[in-house]
Amino acid sequence: MAELVGNVLVGQSGGPTSVINASVAGVISEALNHECIEEIYGALNGVLGILQEDLIDLASESQQQIRALKHTPGAALRTCRYKLKKEQDFERMIEVFKAHNIRYFFYIGGNDSQDTADKISKLAQQQGWEMRVIGVPKTIDNDLPITDHTPGYASAVKYLATTVKEIACDNEAMGQGDLVSIIEVMGRSAGWLAAGAALAKRRDHPHDPPHLILLPEVPFNQEKIIEDIKRVLKREKFCQIVVAEGLVDADGNYLAADAATDSFGHAQLGGAGDALAEIVGQNIPGVKVRVAKPGLAQRCAAHAASKTDVDEAFIAGEAAVTAAIEGHTDKMVTILRGDGDHYETETGLAALSDVANTVKKLPREWINEDGVSMNFQFLRYAQPLIQGEVAIPHDNGVPQFARLEKSRVDKVLPAYEV
Amino acid sequence: MAELVGNVLVGQSGGPTSVINASVAGVISEALNHECIEEIYGALNGVLGILQEDLIDLASESQQQIRALKHTPGAALRTCRYKLKKEQDFERMIEVFKAHNIRYFFYIGGNDSQDTADKISKLAQQQGWEMRVIGVPKTIDNDLPITDHTPGYASAVKYLATTVKEIACDNEAMGQGDLVSIIEVMGRSAGWLAAGAALAKRRDHPHDPPHLILLPEVPFNQEKIIEDIKRVLKREKFCQIVVAEGLVDADGNYLAADAATDSFGHAQLGGAGDALAEIVGQNIPGVKVRVAKPGLAQRCAAHAASKTDVDEAFIAGEAAVTAAIEGHTDKMVTILRGDGDHYETETGLAALSDVANTVKKLPREWINEDGVSMNFQFLRYAQPLIQGEVAIPHDNGVPQFARLEKSRVDKVLPAYEV
Repeated sequence: MAELVGNVLVGQSGGPTSVINASVAGVISEALNHECIEEIYGALNGVLGILQEDLIDLASESQQQIRALKHTPGAALRTCRYKLKKEQDFERMIEVFKAHNIRYFFYIGGNDSQDTADKISKLAQQQGWEMRVIGVPKTIDNDLPITDHTPGYASAVKYLATTVKEIACDNEAMGQGDLVSIIEVMGRSAGWLAAGAALAKRRDHPHDPPHLILLPEVPFNQEKIIEDIKRVLKREKFCQIVVAEGLVDADGNYLAADAATDSFGHAQLGGAGDALAEIVGQNIPGVKVRVAKPGLAQRCAAHAASKTDVDEAFIAGEAAVTAAIEGHTDKMVTILRGDGDHYETETGLAALSDVANTVKKLPREWINEDGVSMNFQFLRYAQPLIQGEVAIPHDNGVPQFARLEKSRVDKVLPAYEV
Repeated sequence: MAELVGNVLVGQSGGPTSVINASVAGVISEALNHECIEEIYGALNGVLGILQEDLIDLASESQQQIRALKHTPGAALRTCRYKLKKEQDFERMIEVFKAHNIRYFFYIGGNDSQDTADKISKLAQQQGWEMRVIGVPKTIDNDLPITDHTPGYASAVKYLATTVKEIACDNEAMGQGDLVSIIEVMGRSAGWLAAGAALAKRRDHPHDPPHLILLPEVPFNQEKIIEDIKRVLKREKFCQIVVAEGLVDADGNYLAADAATDSFGHAQLGGAGDALAEIVGQNIPGVKVRVAKPGLAQRCAAHAASKTDVDEAFIAGEAAVTAAIEGHTDKMVTILRGDGDHYETETGLAALSDVANTVKKLPREWINEDGVSMNFQFLRYAQPLIQGEVAIPHDNGVPQFARLEKSRVDKVLPAYEV
């Protein structure tokens, strides 16, 4: 393989996670090891920044700040949800790559972003612009195929399980048979995150909270759930419920949308958690209902991140660079789990076209027959992912996060209208 | 002062906090130092447990579990919101104290609980039952008078400021001029907690998020706030707002209640955060609005507790015992702050009757003239309280909390109907 000399460009795309910046740190750290890499650039706001030639010089950032990226949530390069549509957009991207001699492009993101990377890679090949494109997996939704799991998922789950366990302590202290505590978690189409709340239970304590996990995979049956709640209230004196925002009934209607329109057609506020609270209040007289909705905190609570996750996100960034240097292109880094009893992973590569726009579902056989709890297969899968805590430096009592200088790379092309 | 020989009873009351169990640990730890104290009992569910003679033997718990109380949220003795009404209730309490030779009673709670302790103390005196009653302050609301601040407040604020800062990282990464991020925090009548979110800002960076703090102390002016939001969006490309659940308009109507009934009188779901989201959506076309509602996590996120707070809660428990041994009664422990530049505290005592049913308000002069941010006086007050982190032992990736054996003390009285 002939050595390809040129510059690196790295970008972040889609919703941030607690560890997406650790992958950037991994890319930079590994890129510095290779003489054939001359400059290390970052694209601001993902593909938007490429289109608009908004590039920054990452090699000039202080080592301190790059190290701090490993515990900084959000997306230090900023992100976008812009989907390249026009052929013109793709042409422009190649122009920018050429103008800045980008020979290595790393894109950190979920399904859509891997699809984008795939298209860019193929167009560059068509145009004879030698460039290696490697995707780095990222999403709290854990729905990327081929990879065992996706960086970002474990930290979201660790934060959720921690929060669920703490709220359960509070509920238990207050509950005298009449308290229903609902926590609404992210997950529109799959219950990966909600399922993760099961990790709050101690081993071999199936009655530990959360008592009921309502997943999008299991159609909501109001009568059954009300009976489930009453049974738990009787036994435990309180009932803690984790509900995925994407909960649907047997007809596929969102629970949130159901409650969101009353009989007069008035739109009402609130998501699945509030909708469930209303149903519980109407069907179990005298019960107290509390709703929590951690919202975005699920994908950015770096202070409660999984060390395993942070480390894997960093390694995925490094692996992307190593693969590109070795001559691979049009691939995404995957995480492969060993077969042994002891949790071990290594990285692999999958074709971007095999990853793009495919979704990994939560296996139905990991959900218990009761439809509201997870079995040992899920626990065996998820438990190793949330091991280890991250010590975050604090300043004045709050976490201290990286702040990049973002020194701009000079623009050399005419402006482009997005 | 003649030595008073007998048993200790400790109870917890009202809403739990991240550190209310640290105060129990402080009581137990100090009680063990005194020969005149024979048994150390806990009342289950506060006064309810006393009425029903549901007492547990705390001295028989393992030292390991008592130590773990220092980082365990909820209320290990469980709590209640039962308000003693009938004279019969008070009579019964004294009966139980006599039956179990309770000579030292420590009640950990907020305003109502201190009032209860005051009444119990006075009735015991009337009846000639020699008993020392000391209250231990507790509430995330920080509204107890005389004491500089209340254990529980600082940990709630540290968690909030941390969460606000993390969500801001996420918002900043996504924001392209069109993102309004709302975090609804506890605080029905006072803005102590919402104000604490200001600690997420770096020193001398007034434009750091949170950009707007909406307090119950400042009547909601829709037109002004919409202008404030537009200004921030233009400057920062996103706008992060912290809103107290008890936000009211100039007529004293809750914002949440306003939105909660539409023109047809239909009740709607959601609190102040959702109501504000609706107002923003209606008045700033094209804007994206996200709402988070940490809910109970604010008072139980022990994994993000303030070490200063945990230590002070423990010391307050110890001080209650020391004061009682010294002969004090009918008092509440207070925290007194030194005048020096360096934050230092010692404990004091206040008459229960001076504490009970009085509320400490957030000083208006600590709110900036813009009505949506806090000035240096508040920061100087609050910053020292959130210093220091607590390392919590984890088991299988989630925090490990104390679980008391709760060995029951034999009942000796006839049952009592509550």
